[in-house]
Amino acid sequence: MSTMRAIQVVGYHEGLKMAEVPVPQVTGPFDVVVRIGGAGVCRTDLHILEGQWAEKSQVHLPYTIGHENAGWVHAVGSAVTNVKEGDKVILHPLITCGLCRACRSGDDVHCEQSKFPGIDTSGGYAEYLLTSARSVVKIDDSLEPADVAALADAGLTAYHAAAKAAKRLTARDTCVVIGAGGLGHIGIQVLTALTPARIIVVDRNPAALDLAKKIGAHEGVLADGSQVEQVMALTGGHGAEALIDFVGEGGATAQGLAMLRQAGDYYVVGYGENIDVPTIDIVSAEISIIGNLVGSYNDLQDLMALAARGAVTLHTQKYALDDFQQAISDLDAGKVRGRAILVP
Amino acid sequence: MSTMRAIQVVGYHEGLKMAEVPVPQVTGPFDVVVRIGGAGVCRTDLHILEGQWAEKSQVHLPYTIGHENAGWVHAVGSAVTNVKEGDKVILHPLITCGLCRACRSGDDVHCEQSKFPGIDTSGGYAEYLLTSARSVVKIDDSLEPADVAALADAGLTAYHAAAKAAKRLTARDTCVVIGAGGLGHIGIQVLTALTPARIIVVDRNPAALDLAKKIGAHEGVLADGSQVEQVMALTGGHGAEALIDFVGEGGATAQGLAMLRQAGDYYVVGYGENIDVPTIDIVSAEISIIGNLVGSYNDLQDLMALAARGAVTLHTQKYALDDFQQAISDLDAGKVRGRAILVP
Amino acid sequence: MSTMRAIQVVGYHEGLKMAEVPVPQVTGPFDVVVRIGGAGVCRTDLHILEGQWAEKSQVHLPYTIGHENAGWVHAVGSAVTNVKEGDKVILHPLITCGLCRACRSGDDVHCEQSKFPGIDTSGGYAEYLLTSARSVVKIDDSLEPADVAALADAGLTAYHAAAKAAKRLTARDTCVVIGAGGLGHIGIQVLTALTPARIIVVDRNPAALDLAKKIGAHEGVLADGSQVEQVMALTGGHGAEALIDFVGEGGATAQGLAMLRQAGDYYVVGYGENIDVPTIDIVSAEISIIGNLVGSYNDLQDLMALAARGAVTLHTQKYALDDFQQAISDLDAGKVRGRAILVP
Amino acid sequence: MSTMRAIQVVGYHEGLKMAEVPVPQVTGPFDVVVRIGGAGVCRTDLHILEGQWAEKSQVHLPYTIGHENAGWVHAVGSAVTNVKEGDKVILHPLITCGLCRACRSGDDVHCEQSKFPGIDTSGGYAEYLLTSARSVVKIDDSLEPADVAALADAGLTAYHAAAKAAKRLTARDTCVVIGAGGLGHIGIQVLTALTPARIIVVDRNPAALDLAKKIGAHEGVLADGSQVEQVMALTGGHGAEALIDFVGEGGATAQGLAMLRQAGDYYVVGYGENIDVPTIDIVSAEISIIGNLVGSYNDLQDLMALAARGAVTLHTQKYALDDFQQAISDLDAGKVRGRAILVP
Repeated sequence: MSTMRAIQVVGYHEGLKMAEVPVPQVTGPFDVVVRIGGAGVCRTDLHILEGQWAEKSQVHLPYTIGHENAGWVHAVGSAVTNVKEGDKVILHPLITCGLCRACRSGDDVHCEQSKFPGIDTSGGYAEYLLTSARSVVKIDDSLEPADVAALADAGLTAYHAAAKAAKRLTARDTCVVIGAGGLGHIGIQVLTALTPARIIVVDRNPAALDLAKKIGAHEGVLADGSQVEQVMALTGGHGAEALIDFVGEGGATAQGLAMLRQAGDYYVVGYGENIDVPTIDIVSAEISIIGNLVGSYNDLQDLMALAARGAVTLHTQKYALDDFQQAISDLDAGKVRGRAILVP
Repeated sequence: MSTMRAIQVVGYHEGLKMAEVPVPQVTGPFDVVVRIGGAGVCRTDLHILEGQWAEKSQVHLPYTIGHENAGWVHAVGSAVTNVKEGDKVILHPLITCGLCRACRSGDDVHCEQSKFPGIDTSGGYAEYLLTSARSVVKIDDSLEPADVAALADAGLTAYHAAAKAAKRLTARDTCVVIGAGGLGHIGIQVLTALTPARIIVVDRNPAALDLAKKIGAHEGVLADGSQVEQVMALTGGHGAEALIDFVGEGGATAQGLAMLRQAGDYYVVGYGENIDVPTIDIVSAEISIIGNLVGSYNDLQDLMALAARGAVTLHTQKYALDDFQQAISDLDAGKVRGRAILVP
Repeated sequence: MSTMRAIQVVGYHEGLKMAEVPVPQVTGPFDVVVRIGGAGVCRTDLHILEGQWAEKSQVHLPYTIGHENAGWVHAVGSAVTNVKEGDKVILHPLITCGLCRACRSGDDVHCEQSKFPGIDTSGGYAEYLLTSARSVVKIDDSLEPADVAALADAGLTAYHAAAKAAKRLTARDTCVVIGAGGLGHIGIQVLTALTPARIIVVDRNPAALDLAKKIGAHEGVLADGSQVEQVMALTGGHGAEALIDFVGEGGATAQGLAMLRQAGDYYVVGYGENIDVPTIDIVSAEISIIGNLVGSYNDLQDLMALAARGAVTLHTQKYALDDFQQAISDLDAGKVRGRAILVP
Repeated sequence: MSTMRAIQVVGYHEGLKMAEVPVPQVTGPFDVVVRIGGAGVCRTDLHILEGQWAEKSQVHLPYTIGHENAGWVHAVGSAVTNVKEGDKVILHPLITCGLCRACRSGDDVHCEQSKFPGIDTSGGYAEYLLTSARSVVKIDDSLEPADVAALADAGLTAYHAAAKAAKRLTARDTCVVIGAGGLGHIGIQVLTALTPARIIVVDRNPAALDLAKKIGAHEGVLADGSQVEQVMALTGGHGAEALIDFVGEGGATAQGLAMLRQAGDYYVVGYGENIDVPTIDIVSAEISIIGNLVGSYNDLQDLMALAARGAVTLHTQKYALDDFQQAISDLDAGKVRGRAILVP
């Protein structure tokens, strides 16, 4: 039996360790083994090491982390019809059952018995990963796994919220985006591709606003304390028809709600603080507050179609798998521009 | 010029007074004068007398109150084509402009310059009321104005929320209704007519639960402190796909959110307390919190179609217009069963 | 290896034959073997015997027919989580892949590689049937397989069309149903459960109209040549907002289109003739003509939820499996009231 | 009373005549008089002169034609709040009642008592035109009336169909556009602005295909008899999820239906021939055939928002009002590039 390198959590509050572990094998008919081409290094990985997910995930240590994965199909089970050996693929973050009501409705993210590689089972900081036919999305020849891996989770979450918002937006509407960081950056590109609505981006960082305008935002608003007033002024005093909040803390939710028009929609993506709002305000303005989790398998297919034509791109900083500690340290120190990717 | 009796607010924190005022006249082409057949006496009217609406409405005293009105068309302007003299009608609570984006989209409740008879202009505690062709809905011959008047505002609000919820509900879904009082009573009837979903009603009052079951609710849950557990048990531990909260105070919102399934919808109708919920809970369960104001003109048309076939009924307690003080006092003392209606 | 009785097609233009064949076995992880409790005898079965499906299905003779099946779970594969041995189930007519875009969107009927037991692989005129976890729907304890089997295909088709139509209908709308036979009978019950719209049923048979009114239709129109005029009169000269055509031949489509209101929707279920309509008529009235195939797995779940509460019922005439020839002959002779069901 | 120049139909099968007629005046509270800045000369105008509309419109001769109009607000009635004197406006082609169900639902095109200036009442080949507050859409300062006038009807029809199609399209879908002429040209630009779907354009004219690709089409298919095969090849043998047919004659509908995928949508805009299709084909492929009329007032607002940011442009060839005969003759002779516009 062949072995491979894998980066593992061996204990909380201590560093990751490289181990030599068996290459995963196909055993079930829908199994797919993927040779990893790139694995995103995400802030969630730092939180895992701090033990924040220990209770929730109930994962047994040691295990291999990494939940944003792309690569090449290495082996497939007997019933797999959607990909074949050698195909370039990105992996949906969840492995879902396919039988529950959510799965049967295309809403697989709410699967009643999903697994989450990198969180509660072996992930992608490794040479190979075991997943399911239900989780693999074939990507265009023009795309490289290491370039798109970070779209698997962070990008997919942004896509999901932006695509929901776009459903109701016309050329006359305004969509505010709070937060032009990693997710916001993808969200702005998705909005630009999916809707003719005007996009106003709010961020504390002038450089982020400049970048936002280069990728499609129509207006940038500096979050200097006057952001609500600025958005109201830009919308003729009415507020925005939709708002996507990629921040969700530090007062963003109260400010965001104040930027909303009558009958407007508030999409919550970022989290941290509480939303604390009088019911009378929700009723009298008839607004909606809409939660957003990661996107579905279909969302990932759609996002990859956008990526294939260059409509969504992401800056990445690549590290060899052996340099995993450097990637983690750089991320922790705020030294990564765009997304850090481990390349085996 | 002929005159009529009208019941007026002459000062806050004092009683209503009957006055003899001019009968309103048609002056514009879309004006409609309605001879009042019934005017609902609503808790909001008590709040007006307490001065709670003074600042918001900016109404000049004295003025005639009454915002739930129905009757017969008495006179119409030259451009009115949807009703004619003698028609039985119910009045949408708002007089809307017809030109703003909301009005042009069938979403007239968010009209940018609406008036609200009984709140900020002369209302229906009178023999006649001036309104607009845009506010009158012809009712079926089988209905009497005094019987349906209270559907104009309270009933319309319940219809609006229930119809929104029904859009997404199938025979496999559960909709929880918190509060089986005036609005909840209508909401249950509307849900029964519009959706095959299972309806669970939560109320503190066993008699209200009994009545709820007679008009279509499948389950009644006594709000005795264990209501969340009871709803979870009735939904196999998953919670409900939708919930309409007609209470919105006394802890209803936190309990309601706890009764919701993953990806569930929470419809806020009643108000009083704050919704205070961690953004992480909204995101991880991917729930929506949806505000609900009074229904649109189209909603009122649909509600009257339900009423015409007996699918929505309301118990009323009628008072002669001259007995207005008795009606107000009975309402304040909790002595009205169903809705109090003034009949000129 | 145990054997069972199965009724097979042994040649076209000749009678079915009973054979002793092996009981199907679970081999794959998602396999489910069902002990048949009832198999619907359908007009399609007569067409199969006439060879009408031979080219399309490419099935190898002999094979077991029967595509409307219900029963009890007899054995399950290792990965089956949605049913267990002993569960009462109805079978969706298709076995679908679960991996193609249609399957991943809840639109499994358009699966790119589905099988159709009873048409192109072994069906349910037998003691046992091999199917997939993706095709079994658990039914309520109160339902018996033999009573609901015919809802698996004919009933599901009617449900699908009626549920689509109901999405757009309000209490003010009218839905015309052409044809109150087997499918129409289910369609009317589904419309009654799902929408408050007025239902007008058109049929040549006065007895069918009487029955239609007993199960929820508001108006019955005899198709005596004046049916278009009658429907127009019943709709104030405007026509109906929606129409479901369960006939699709003998002039039904031209008459149906003439019964439609501006911007109305025409749902095609029955087939036989061509729709032949000037493009100018489609454009100037802005109507839609909407095809309807059998319902999805989710539709079957919803239909079973309606059946569980008695909202959809079906008259059946049961035959022992050994009496298959009698059932076929009775159906061919028009002697079956409701649906014929074979009970092993 | 002041007078103005107006170009009138004085008889069928004879030329237009210039007349001196009274300038229209505001008499009702919602009246708006517009000083014409540009009036589109449309093929429909040629048909009017040939008498094709005489019976349908029942217009009394002589009358002023011109149904694609834009200009400046000259005078407004007392109740007009959405525009003021001097505003640049484009005119929705219909004057609608605002009171019927269609008008109250934002679906004003199906108004039960609309007028159509230039068809059944005085139109815009003149210096001034009388319309209603319900028909005027304020345009951006950057736009000139003469440049956008032709978007009022032809462009609005294309917008309406493309926006409907866009609602269901994702980045993975393909939309075929049959006909890259005047309407198709706008349709392609609208699709490009509203959806990330792939656009395949089919036309007989190679130059039209080249232009289509410059404004957003991804593929051009020459209608040389092999167009169905070409579209099938471009869609992996599956066909397109949506198709907008701007031709509707010469075999376009049969070819178009053959280009459609299972569950695909066929949007009919152009007309001329019959759609003649077996019901079994509609049912078994579960396709929809969807009629499209001119867009609503809201559609025109949205289209003007696109035009304001340069997302939709139109080539125009301008003529002085006095040169009306030249414009008509050029159009009839096929000598107009883009759209002919009369400028008073």
